[in-house]
Amino acid sequence: MQRHFVEELEALKTNLIKMGSFAEESIVRAIRALLERDADLAREIIAQDERINAMEIEIGDAIVDLLALQQPVATDLRFILAALKINNDLERIGDHAVNIAESALKYAGGEPVKPFVDLPRMAQVTKAMLRDSIDAFIHADSAKARAVLISDDTIDDLNRKIVAELVALMRAEPVLIEQALDLIRVSRNLERVADLSTNIAEEVVFVAEAHVVKHHAEEKPPSQSREAGPNPA
Amino acid sequence: MQRHFVEELEALKTNLIKMGSFAEESIVRAIRALLERDADLAREIIAQDERINAMEIEIGDAIVDLLALQQPVATDLRFILAALKINNDLERIGDHAVNIAESALKYAGGEPVKPFVDLPRMAQVTKAMLRDSIDAFIHADSAKARAVLISDDTIDDLNRKIVAELVALMRAEPVLIEQALDLIRVSRNLERVADLSTNIAEEVVFVAEAHVVKHHAEEKPPSQSREAGPNPA
Repeated sequence: MQRHFVEELEALKTNLIKMGSFAEESIVRAIRALLERDADLAREIIAQDERINAMEIEIGDAIVDLLALQQPVATDLRFILAALKINNDLERIGDHAVNIAESALKYAGGEPVKPFVDLPRMAQVTKAMLRDSIDAFIHADSAKARAVLISDDTIDDLNRKIVAELVALMRAEPVLIEQALDLIRVSRNLERVADLSTNIAEEVVFVAEAHVVKHHAEEKPPSQSREAGPNPA
Repeated sequence: MQRHFVEELEALKTNLIKMGSFAEESIVRAIRALLERDADLAREIIAQDERINAMEIEIGDAIVDLLALQQPVATDLRFILAALKINNDLERIGDHAVNIAESALKYAGGEPVKPFVDLPRMAQVTKAMLRDSIDAFIHADSAKARAVLISDDTIDDLNRKIVAELVALMRAEPVLIEQALDLIRVSRNLERVADLSTNIAEEVVFVAEAHVVKHHAEEKPPSQSREAGPNPA
């Protein structure tokens, strides 16, 4: 039984990596659809959401089986429960990719508003956060997970800046209001993806340190470049 | 051991009811802060988010202990895993109450834009969805849960209508753009709360019918007023 359990854990990891890659790719492609005003690509992403939903159900079922049949305890139990949450977070990230693709589709039908600068940068940081959070989970790398938590501030700043610029634009050119709203929606969806990546990173720290970092993210460790011990809440 | 387990399950239900009430109350109060331009109330809601975060941690720990010590299987296992997801969803609902309170705070600092009609109605429907989803979970009432799934369409319609009206307003009076954006943000946050209530309702149907309704919500049962059997996916 023990060997079987180890194999099932490995299969679970592999499936979460696949799902994470798919979610990441969906976000990247949705942003490309927006920037290149590619309505076909946007429609394709919307249609492909079924795949990530199917992955969530499959992984969820595997986790329930693992819990019921193997009755794991301690570290294994915490790892599997973290996998369950991450499975849910990745499915939500897929939904945000669909939201971005829907905004891209609407946006492609109107006039472009202005050269984007911060939005591609925000997409890049978000993508890196998502990748690093999954990576940190698979390798139980809590230093990498803590770096993800810190990146979330960058995203919040970028989102604020993008929204402020778009509000100024709407004020100057009311005819562009709907187009600007599409872009605000994209920015907010990227912010949510970054939040969900942060949730994943928090799970990693939680499993690694058996410490709830979740609602204490602002209490950063004294040195952020290396592993720091948890502060008791 | 068995009696102990039953008691712990009851305690888990009680705590989820408490957390659900608190989340519901936070949403209702955040909307009141918006409508009555009550900045003090908004600040109070923001400050109280700590409480719901603490509840999430406490319930999460209790669930891990239940799984580790009692090693439940079958229906009990599914119920407990659903409780874990619902715990997470309720904490997110608390975050949306904070977002609404933040918008209320900003909004209270400027000019009111126009008499609200659809926003209070949307808040009311959302509140009922949240309450009914928790109720359905506690009483394993999948007919009530299915009714929640159907209400989500009302919310989507209201959100679309509110956003369209506010876009028209921004176009007519660009000076009100930021105030209108605050209201769009509130509408989106209510929509997310309704989504999360829908997630809770999906869990209930899942536990009750051991059938994944999640990504098939559009396949509504033929009769919506009574319990209908699941359609195989």
